[in-house]
Amino acid sequence: MSKLILAINAGSSSLKFQLIEMPEEKLITKGLIERIGLDNSIFKIELNGEKIKETKDIPDHDKAVHIMLDSLKEHDLIKDVNDIDGTGHRVVHGGESFPKSAYITDEVEREIERLSDLAPLHNPANLMGIRAFRKLLPEVPHVAVFDTSFHQSMSQAAYMYSLPYEYYTDYRIRKYGFHGTSHKYVSRRAAKLLDKPIEDLKIVSCHIGNGASVAAVVNGESVDTSMGFTPLAGLTMGTRSGNIDPALVPFIMEKTGKTAAEVRYTLNKESGLLGLTGKFSDVRDIEMDAKNGCERCELGLQVYARHIHGYIGAYAAHMQGADVIIMTAGVGEHSPETRERVLQGLEFMGVKLDKEKNQAMTDGEGLISTDDSPVKVLVIPTNEEVMIARDVVKYGEV
Amino acid sequence: MSKLILAINAGSSSLKFQLIEMPEEKLITKGLIERIGLDNSIFKIELNGEKIKETKDIPDHDKAVHIMLDSLKEHDLIKDVNDIDGTGHRVVHGGESFPKSAYITDEVEREIERLSDLAPLHNPANLMGIRAFRKLLPEVPHVAVFDTSFHQSMSQAAYMYSLPYEYYTDYRIRKYGFHGTSHKYVSRRAAKLLDKPIEDLKIVSCHIGNGASVAAVVNGESVDTSMGFTPLAGLTMGTRSGNIDPALVPFIMEKTGKTAAEVRYTLNKESGLLGLTGKFSDVRDIEMDAKNGCERCELGLQVYARHIHGYIGAYAAHMQGADVIIMTAGVGEHSPETRERVLQGLEFMGVKLDKEKNQAMTDGEGLISTDDSPVKVLVIPTNEEVMIARDVVKYGEV
Repeated sequence: MSKLILAINAGSSSLKFQLIEMPEEKLITKGLIERIGLDNSIFKIELNGEKIKETKDIPDHDKAVHIMLDSLKEHDLIKDVNDIDGTGHRVVHGGESFPKSAYITDEVEREIERLSDLAPLHNPANLMGIRAFRKLLPEVPHVAVFDTSFHQSMSQAAYMYSLPYEYYTDYRIRKYGFHGTSHKYVSRRAAKLLDKPIEDLKIVSCHIGNGASVAAVVNGESVDTSMGFTPLAGLTMGTRSGNIDPALVPFIMEKTGKTAAEVRYTLNKESGLLGLTGKFSDVRDIEMDAKNGCERCELGLQVYARHIHGYIGAYAAHMQGADVIIMTAGVGEHSPETRERVLQGLEFMGVKLDKEKNQAMTDGEGLISTDDSPVKVLVIPTNEEVMIARDVVKYGEV
Repeated sequence: MSKLILAINAGSSSLKFQLIEMPEEKLITKGLIERIGLDNSIFKIELNGEKIKETKDIPDHDKAVHIMLDSLKEHDLIKDVNDIDGTGHRVVHGGESFPKSAYITDEVEREIERLSDLAPLHNPANLMGIRAFRKLLPEVPHVAVFDTSFHQSMSQAAYMYSLPYEYYTDYRIRKYGFHGTSHKYVSRRAAKLLDKPIEDLKIVSCHIGNGASVAAVVNGESVDTSMGFTPLAGLTMGTRSGNIDPALVPFIMEKTGKTAAEVRYTLNKESGLLGLTGKFSDVRDIEMDAKNGCERCELGLQVYARHIHGYIGAYAAHMQGADVIIMTAGVGEHSPETRERVLQGLEFMGVKLDKEKNQAMTDGEGLISTDDSPVKVLVIPTNEEVMIARDVVKYGEV
């Protein structure tokens, strides 16, 4: 019998939701509540392709969940809140405590709270969503799905920083990696599309959007990834710097008079493509202006693609070669131009891009390598919500 | 006619020298003065394989140069100081001002001083050596050879950090790279050993010792390198962390109460292999203890090799494949075990290591790849001093 699962992504003042029918993995509806706790809160929901937007008074997450459930009833998507068979919650940081998704108990809630030290902006917000749903739907299973879990399979040599060892034991400093739910989804989808067991594939998964990371996947498990202790590390992103010489943090503090926290803000919010171009964080805007002669836009696109390109080579080295490269997320799914910059020049490792197929693939799923390419290159729309719904069924025993 | 060149590497309390006969590139003698300006200064010189060590009173660099020149006379290596035809000085930071070595004028001295902002520990010390030699040998040419020059050929996409652009224009923040003199020397030596024009080779040069960096060399020019704004970035080194998540700097400050400068010190002096193992920074010590079952030593070796391995893949990607991999510096020249860790698993890009040749190569020069390996792997002892002497001849018009 079909089950209805809510996949939830709660921020400090927002709540994204998708209602998914399982095991069909059919999206029933999705929506977004914004400005929770602020003036003019907004409730958005999509129904049969139609977008409905309402301004409401939504003082807290409890009320947001109430309104959302009422809306589902109102639009006849559920008869009663008891029709919801389970909820799944994206949680950013699971540390080393959660190598898998977890059925949420009071103890699990406390552990997520304890991990807030590692993700102070995200875990407390994720918890607000969890608490609201557990209160309003006390009878159904709630499952936490962590961005970090998929990468817990990394070896110690991959996750340790070359820092005093006690920083790991005392402060839990290590590489965790993020976007795990996405990398897991697309790697499994790739195996299905290629009709091969995932155990036989060595995959470089490129989740490249405004946030961006690359993962190396062997035997279905992450063996390395470009994000680190936080989602700042690795690739150039929309507003994040990715890796820089760590000595630059004290140098920038000395030169600008900023505090360490202010430099961290700059690295997270004022760097990346926005810093390089001075005006845009979105690859679509930058591609347009680069065509019109904006040199710093062209530079931004080159830097953005260069680092992804380099990671593909590095991860091929770590996996002793690659069988599959996946491009996903905003840029990976929709920008043939950036994909071409990333993928050209990899013939030495068996990548033959089909430029026509690549150009034609602006909003779909499929191969963009040539038929005789030893390494298969796939564009796959990511779907973290389906992955969450699957784990609600599995860990919530729905 | 043969010329005598002094190649100098001056630190704040030390001065290394080599007397080299050019164009034969023949080492006449070498030595080291330590503890300049401190109690019990030490003068060391090697003569015909014999090492002489004397304790002297050496209050400053002028006196150190005096004593060194007197010693050369005393041992009949020169008749008179005028027999010295030129001196060459290693200078760590040439910024964007010195894409090549430079004949030292007062203006060049001032520019090196101005660049001290970028290398506060090194450029002022290098200048002490330069000033002492210019004073004592006013009639001969003096040439500055910069660690950064070789990497000035990097493209903007390679050297720009994804930071606010004005950090580049206002504070000169960019990737500079170091070890340039070594990477240049070994890449040219590789072309000679393979009897191919350097213009035809794509080279990954691995200078791996206590300090360590990798460079990608195309057409004889550096196109990328692993060190960055400072020599802290890139690979795990003896005591340096290499790349870490930059968000860790503020996090470590918050957790430990250290200042930014103290964290920088930790990243430079207490991290790397020393941090991971908790006891050793030298790969020889670590290899020995790893064999005796020290798990953190084994971890240190894995991490050290893993990052080099990854950079080889990344730089192959940036060069669209590699023709040559060079291993140089302390570990690269003398540790078959670490070389094997670094080089195994690169068959996908055409690297076939000859394990026997590799094991046998503990102190020499030559190929360690199989005869049919598409990518040639060479061990080459580096020789920065010969490179310096060459540039004295060239830029000093000796």
